[in-house]
Amino acid sequence: MNNTNRTDVNTLGEFGLIEHLTKQTQLKHPSSIYGIGDDAAVLSSSSGLTVVSTDMLVEGIHFDLMYTPLKHLGYKSVVVNLSDIYAMNALPKQITVSLAISNRFSVEALEELYAGIHQACDFYNVDLVGGDTTSSQKGLYLSVTAIGETDADRISYRNTAKIGDLLCVTGNLGAAYLGLQILEREKQIYLANPGVQPDLDQSSYLIERQLKPEARRDMINLFAKNQLVPTAMIDVSDGLASELFHICRQSGVGAYIEESGVPIHPEAEQQAIKFQLDPITCALSGGEDYELLFSVRPEDLDKVKFLPDTYIMGEVVAPDDGIRLHTKGGNIHDLKAQGWKHF
Amino acid sequence: MNNTNRTDVNTLGEFGLIEHLTKQTQLKHPSSIYGIGDDAAVLSSSSGLTVVSTDMLVEGIHFDLMYTPLKHLGYKSVVVNLSDIYAMNALPKQITVSLAISNRFSVEALEELYAGIHQACDFYNVDLVGGDTTSSQKGLYLSVTAIGETDADRISYRNTAKIGDLLCVTGNLGAAYLGLQILEREKQIYLANPGVQPDLDQSSYLIERQLKPEARRDMINLFAKNQLVPTAMIDVSDGLASELFHICRQSGVGAYIEESGVPIHPEAEQQAIKFQLDPITCALSGGEDYELLFSVRPEDLDKVKFLPDTYIMGEVVAPDDGIRLHTKGGNIHDLKAQGWKHF
Repeated sequence: MNNTNRTDVNTLGEFGLIEHLTKQTQLKHPSSIYGIGDDAAVLSSSSGLTVVSTDMLVEGIHFDLMYTPLKHLGYKSVVVNLSDIYAMNALPKQITVSLAISNRFSVEALEELYAGIHQACDFYNVDLVGGDTTSSQKGLYLSVTAIGETDADRISYRNTAKIGDLLCVTGNLGAAYLGLQILEREKQIYLANPGVQPDLDQSSYLIERQLKPEARRDMINLFAKNQLVPTAMIDVSDGLASELFHICRQSGVGAYIEESGVPIHPEAEQQAIKFQLDPITCALSGGEDYELLFSVRPEDLDKVKFLPDTYIMGEVVAPDDGIRLHTKGGNIHDLKAQGWKHF
Repeated sequence: MNNTNRTDVNTLGEFGLIEHLTKQTQLKHPSSIYGIGDDAAVLSSSSGLTVVSTDMLVEGIHFDLMYTPLKHLGYKSVVVNLSDIYAMNALPKQITVSLAISNRFSVEALEELYAGIHQACDFYNVDLVGGDTTSSQKGLYLSVTAIGETDADRISYRNTAKIGDLLCVTGNLGAAYLGLQILEREKQIYLANPGVQPDLDQSSYLIERQLKPEARRDMINLFAKNQLVPTAMIDVSDGLASELFHICRQSGVGAYIEESGVPIHPEAEQQAIKFQLDPITCALSGGEDYELLFSVRPEDLDKVKFLPDTYIMGEVVAPDDGIRLHTKGGNIHDLKAQGWKHF
């Protein structure tokens, strides 16, 4: 935080601070009747389903402010919640944001954070309708709740994958994890020798995937346009393997994945090798990609085959067949769910 | 925390922990289609308005675990959010709960916390539909979001009080603040001499108002039964004066309050005097009472006069007349909003 101006949050007080940070908020949705400024936000109900998701992001656990600009953090904290709404095959409409901050954060720092929050709200067309701001004894805590809508015949749960369904994934996997490894490496170099400038230009794609991920709103629109409803869906926040385990356990099925079907970006592949890591391991266990993992009925093959940026990587199988990976080398082995552990 | 058994949360892992703590959750509302276990909770929409409120509670800022049993904390964390929903003249239906915990909390400690959360959900007839559990570097952070419903012609905002309206308040004020002062006093005595047993029996009402407050669901039902819609309403979380300022500022009005109309419980009055505090100051600035402050049209006087546990304490006046208190001694002075400061 290189702010030359530093305004203590106490100069505004709690209510003044919320007002200051949210005054630019404009409600975009007709369903957002009343936003910030009362005991609760007021939304009008439509005839469909409402979906609600909430996430807590903790400094030192989920993010490191040494290399995370506050604007990016604000943006990402919204995106990770919207990703959960998209993973229900729903469209987010509103969010609330609660903050707990220690007194080391200035008003200018919080303005940066909210600039990112507002940018994400604009880009994803959601309304910031409420929140709470309080102090913490140490560090920054961000709790975001997202609210979305969908139709009863379009919702995609995790527990409804069927044997024979095709398993698909969007985008590419592992890049966010490798971006994090680069940032951690540069942090260590900096800590050892503060005079050295970080060398990040070569890795801008990987770093952007880590610091400013995007959620797959485009896929939800494409599903609707192509009259496709995934039989099950989840977003890839903890790593592909972990998400696959959630779908299989909750649906009571197994999965068979082709390594050659798991999309990995060339830069991620090269960076993994530089770090002496196996690219497929980064893709399976890396996390924070915010891509969508979903299953479709086999008769929807033609619909899914021509979806852009979508990869068919396997099949839903009987539970007794387990969750297995067919490697490029021709071996078949059991997958392990090694998602991010935050305890 | 006197748990003789201490199970490290790491033995369960993040997903195991959520499952363990929420397995007794049963959905009570037809509108709660799907609760914990997917990317988002799924609610069906009714034809009315949805209201959403969120609060963050921070250890060392909002609560002190030296004298706050975790079960009470869980209960209170739900109640304070429901209170915001009632303050919109709405009925809460669902909540989500996110936690950040340091590794000093055992599984048994979190079970206690969730026992209180479940008890509040049962008592207030709301469904726990989602949440997030993660680790903190230090302390306990609780973020609760409540979702409720009401009809478009029954909602009560803060910014709609009109000149001439009667100002009313429920229950009694200041008791929670005095309960806190007693708990703080006993904490200091204990810290100075751990052998001394706390003397709390004499003050059970005040302490209960602090540790296990209730929200005024009964009033919302009474309003409906009596076909009364407050012209404006807010819950008393930061102190009566502070809430009055919110209503006046947002409605563009002033207020005139009779000290004799501000309800104070006899035990609160006596305890204030013992602490050499002015009882009316405790009532005006104490906070955490979770009573309802509301305004009604003058023609609704007959409806409000016979509401149980409701006190008419003043009138909405022109903005130029300010926000003033007519004391029992016959003086009139300007009120100051001295709500709780958390920065």
